[in-house]
Amino acid sequence: MAVYKRYHKEDTVSYTLGITVTFEMLRFKKEYASKVYVHSAMKQGDTLDKLAAICRDAGIGIVYADKIFNVLSQKENCYIIGEFKKFSCRLDNTKPHIVLVNPSNSGNMGTIIRSALGFGLNQMAVIRPAVDIFDPKVVRASMGALFSTDFEYFSSFDEYQENNGGREIYPFMLDAETSLHNLAPKGRYSLVFGNEATGLPEEFANTGTPVVIPHLKGIDSLNLPVAAGIAMYEATKACFK
Amino acid sequence: MAVYKRYHKEDTVSYTLGITVTFEMLRFKKEYASKVYVHSAMKQGDTLDKLAAICRDAGIGIVYADKIFNVLSQKENCYIIGEFKKFSCRLDNTKPHIVLVNPSNSGNMGTIIRSALGFGLNQMAVIRPAVDIFDPKVVRASMGALFSTDFEYFSSFDEYQENNGGREIYPFMLDAETSLHNLAPKGRYSLVFGNEATGLPEEFANTGTPVVIPHLKGIDSLNLPVAAGIAMYEATKACFK
Repeated sequence: MAVYKRYHKEDTVSYTLGITVTFEMLRFKKEYASKVYVHSAMKQGDTLDKLAAICRDAGIGIVYADKIFNVLSQKENCYIIGEFKKFSCRLDNTKPHIVLVNPSNSGNMGTIIRSALGFGLNQMAVIRPAVDIFDPKVVRASMGALFSTDFEYFSSFDEYQENNGGREIYPFMLDAETSLHNLAPKGRYSLVFGNEATGLPEEFANTGTPVVIPHLKGIDSLNLPVAAGIAMYEATKACFK
Repeated sequence: MAVYKRYHKEDTVSYTLGITVTFEMLRFKKEYASKVYVHSAMKQGDTLDKLAAICRDAGIGIVYADKIFNVLSQKENCYIIGEFKKFSCRLDNTKPHIVLVNPSNSGNMGTIIRSALGFGLNQMAVIRPAVDIFDPKVVRASMGALFSTDFEYFSSFDEYQENNGGREIYPFMLDAETSLHNLAPKGRYSLVFGNEATGLPEEFANTGTPVVIPHLKGIDSLNLPVAAGIAMYEATKACFK
């Protein structure tokens, strides 16, 4: 009998919790899919038929087992779990990048990946220490956008820059002088965001062109995924004219 | 011995979980504060001295008790809890409003209140069914911005409009024709956002001027607090020039 364990970042596989995110994984990263688990409460019908057909065509095993749902998912309405092998990607240095410096919350990281894909920004650098991008909570919060995103981890911002030269760098900082209102980046650029609690380290004040999102002093700062969403919306406006 | 119960929406009091949000409550709604609980793990020092001084001056009792922390807070690093009587407010019809139609997630509601205050939008209508704005999760996610916000619940959008006439209404919808890029509202206006999962009901397509945040089809929609943050950023730009 199979023994199911909670997800750990050292694992070679991760999971898509829920139908939508499992379909996204099968659509964009089918070659990494290893299994699909179906809960006994999953309704028969078109959705399950479609899932079964995709799995059959791709030679992906379907396992009917309820136990793994108790182990991996806290959500009550999760009846489908996909298992996939972790994959690695390389950033495309010709495209705009999002750089997350020391992100510490899985849900926030997933939400940023989702917004980024919406604004055509599917290249994401992550500077360690940082949450694990394959954590099922990141995958779920991204609504599957992770499977259409190229990402790469670096041990420092310097290492990121050494591997991705010739770029305009825009660190988002509360005390920056340049207003986001005036930002219209072109070509190779990187939007850089700091940790949820601490923001970007002070040295970013001397890196590229620091940018601030103007807001009143009634709040200390905007929530990180909100700030990142606003920045990406403004930076990519020209692409949506 | 005091018996502490979990928070219920029928309660006449609610709670601020954490130091920052408790200070915000004492700063803006001190007259509603009834008690402040201090955990035995709270460090002696300036912060506690300042808190004690505020409570002494205002005649608010300080209770040293650990048990209530286990009951009310899931966060490990919460050492201060404020208790306050629920209050009611009226919207100011001369100011811009945020209208949340059937919001279902406490964290999202709090995050939207926080962004809204940052953009000078501290008037919030909530259309039922909706989460309870006094839920400690909303209060915490708002980072205390709730205490600087006027809000009012309505049983329908019609009831909201009957009580708040003469306004430009901007419902945010995925299939709207007007792009947010072209929105520069003036005077009395209302930015209207729907439920996390279902968006706004179809009838809003014929209400005021529906607005869309342009994004690629690679995602179904933006996360609600991200979309609301982007909308508020754009709508209030002129105030930050």
